[in-house]
Amino acid sequence: MRLGTDDAKRRAETSGQDEVRRANVSTVLRLVHFGGAKTRSEIVAATGLNRSTVGALTAELVRLGLIRERRGEVVGKGRPSNVVEPVSQSVYVLAFDITAGEVAAARVGLGGYLLQVRRRLHQGPVQDVAGVVDHLAMLVREMRAKAAPGSLCLGVVVSVPASVRQPDGLVRRSPSLGWYEAPLVVMLAAALGHELPVAAGNDGDLGAVAEYLRGAARGSRDVLYIRGQDGIGGGVIVDGELLKGAGGYAGELGHIVVRPEGRHCACGARGCWEAETGDSAIIRAFGRNPHDSDIEDVIADVATGSRRALSGVRKTGEIVGLGLATLMNIFNPDTVVLGGSFGSLFPTMEPTLHAAVARALGPIREQATLVRSELGSDAQLIGAAEVAFADVLDHPVRTIEALLAVATPNAAESNIKAIRATS
Amino acid sequence: MRLGTDDAKRRAETSGQDEVRRANVSTVLRLVHFGGAKTRSEIVAATGLNRSTVGALTAELVRLGLIRERRGEVVGKGRPSNVVEPVSQSVYVLAFDITAGEVAAARVGLGGYLLQVRRRLHQGPVQDVAGVVDHLAMLVREMRAKAAPGSLCLGVVVSVPASVRQPDGLVRRSPSLGWYEAPLVVMLAAALGHELPVAAGNDGDLGAVAEYLRGAARGSRDVLYIRGQDGIGGGVIVDGELLKGAGGYAGELGHIVVRPEGRHCACGARGCWEAETGDSAIIRAFGRNPHDSDIEDVIADVATGSRRALSGVRKTGEIVGLGLATLMNIFNPDTVVLGGSFGSLFPTMEPTLHAAVARALGPIREQATLVRSELGSDAQLIGAAEVAFADVLDHPVRTIEALLAVATPNAAESNIKAIRATS
Repeated sequence: MRLGTDDAKRRAETSGQDEVRRANVSTVLRLVHFGGAKTRSEIVAATGLNRSTVGALTAELVRLGLIRERRGEVVGKGRPSNVVEPVSQSVYVLAFDITAGEVAAARVGLGGYLLQVRRRLHQGPVQDVAGVVDHLAMLVREMRAKAAPGSLCLGVVVSVPASVRQPDGLVRRSPSLGWYEAPLVVMLAAALGHELPVAAGNDGDLGAVAEYLRGAARGSRDVLYIRGQDGIGGGVIVDGELLKGAGGYAGELGHIVVRPEGRHCACGARGCWEAETGDSAIIRAFGRNPHDSDIEDVIADVATGSRRALSGVRKTGEIVGLGLATLMNIFNPDTVVLGGSFGSLFPTMEPTLHAAVARALGPIREQATLVRSELGSDAQLIGAAEVAFADVLDHPVRTIEALLAVATPNAAESNIKAIRATS
Repeated sequence: MRLGTDDAKRRAETSGQDEVRRANVSTVLRLVHFGGAKTRSEIVAATGLNRSTVGALTAELVRLGLIRERRGEVVGKGRPSNVVEPVSQSVYVLAFDITAGEVAAARVGLGGYLLQVRRRLHQGPVQDVAGVVDHLAMLVREMRAKAAPGSLCLGVVVSVPASVRQPDGLVRRSPSLGWYEAPLVVMLAAALGHELPVAAGNDGDLGAVAEYLRGAARGSRDVLYIRGQDGIGGGVIVDGELLKGAGGYAGELGHIVVRPEGRHCACGARGCWEAETGDSAIIRAFGRNPHDSDIEDVIADVATGSRRALSGVRKTGEIVGLGLATLMNIFNPDTVVLGGSFGSLFPTMEPTLHAAVARALGPIREQATLVRSELGSDAQLIGAAEVAFADVLDHPVRTIEALLAVATPNAAESNIKAIRATS
């Protein structure tokens, strides 16, 4: 149901001719960014636009250097339809995923391609925000140096296991990093000399976006994404949109109460889901001590098939499933994606999980599919990149021309073609 | 963040001239339906449309009989701006709210006015779906007979404490009514000789819609609505849209797990929130027996201020607050609306509630306001009516002309004015 006056108003605003053209250019770019190579015929079919309009739109995107066209294969009679595909080296995003253990970094090109990925241990204690920021800035410089000549950087986006205030990217709280009220985005932007837009997002949200757009939840509309780690990173897609809440803090799925009198949680409360089944709790469920074992040891235990390991799998699956049942009853998702430690344990844990989520209401249970993350530890990087792709997808012409004007202050619009030809 | 290709596509589709005009007529009608009387100047300011366009749009709506215009007050210099207001008797919806104890019925006019409200005990056992349907059909006939001459009925919408399949309105499960796989909508449509559109919805969802549009959550974007009753009816507004989920079953907030080893719930699981704090649990918390006391006795106890009553309030507030904290961590709402038994107990329970939700994460807790339902037991009726108002709000011309064609099969479009003049 549409509620209130918003939708009609928004539509009434988007009726001008320029606006229609911008929206159409954007639609074609989105199609190939999210769907990969497409024939012109496929674009005509997907958009409902006519063939000559599609030709003009792709010509505009070729001029901007964002897509290329090549002759398609001849299928049956008639002229082959040109194939349109994103130029992955045209624009890119530098994406980071900070966890307690490491910094993952990637250069992600248009079309969501991982052009370069690096995983580095922290150089000092992770609690030292300034030290982590210096490390990120160094990685930014290294990765920019490796980018293809003429390739444009859209910005830097950092995934953190944290409540992040928008739009200023203040990290309000991250127990697993030990960061509280840390101005991550302001500090990183300064360390980069304010040359690039910088943003930050919650790891669960970005993972959900990635699995929805390019991973295990492609084609779903209502998705739960859960990443087991020190804590639990969670994100929810509701009818194709990321759940954000009033302040952008929604989706703190690790802090649903599963045992009111249970373990103390880093958030100050007791019996939160993440206190009961974060990595430390899983390690304990396997009869190990979290101080001298890690989740890799648990995975190794599973491979042995010992009774202790089977018991650990069962205990973990039961409490993971208990939280999932609560979330399923709330969201009625079509797909539930498990990543991180839950993804690693998924193959052995699956029967226990299914038994545990049987407590969800029948009509809801029968619609939900539980799957393992497809993107694994790349999910946060891929999701982070989409944050910075948003502008060029919404406003391709304006965004590219603005970037070129900065890159080459004297370049008039007529120079675009020459400049982009080098990419 | 906008995800994927949907939004751009939707916008590209709504660009034709006819479509723009339809959207504008719809926008003006929504403004007065949801906001009440408005001067033309206010409509110009709210829509961004120019004065002559607004004049043409209001003229169209006057022709359809949906609004009336009157001369406004003179304020300062210049001509007074005409005041536009909805004609509440022009079109109406018959709304029902079925609970275990009674049937509430209302005739709701354009603008959301309750033109007539009736509350009736069930005529037989509530488990007898066919008997309840007969009762509803009788009330439909009675209320239609009371409607103003020329007034058009948009349809019948029934609120039930149930998982309702859309679009066919099959009641999948309603423990409190004892209905399972009951084809409520099909049966009621047949009982009414297929003369009116019939729909059904979940009581929590409809209450959420009503409080968001016309009650305690007006102006909020992210709302939790919770109605304490036999069970717990819940509904969630996410960024101005009702949370529905893959099959329309989302928002089963009563079935979040708050005590894994707790009381048996009617859903078959244990420790669901509604098993721990539905009406029976509240009555027990007040030291009473649910078999010979009801929630009215509890409210009377509160008025005495006895120690037993204070203890009951505290126990109830703690468990209600525990569930609220989980939901707040998930949704980061700006407003939490408590209705039903929770609304009745709200004034005395408020301090305990605030203490209990302190366990929610800081950035989330500081953004949420807990309030008592404004619409009380009318919320479901008002929310149900909006389901059937949707068509006339989206497509005013098409909907009214179609209704008139049925009402008076030989009426050509030129007769509309004459017919509507009787309203």
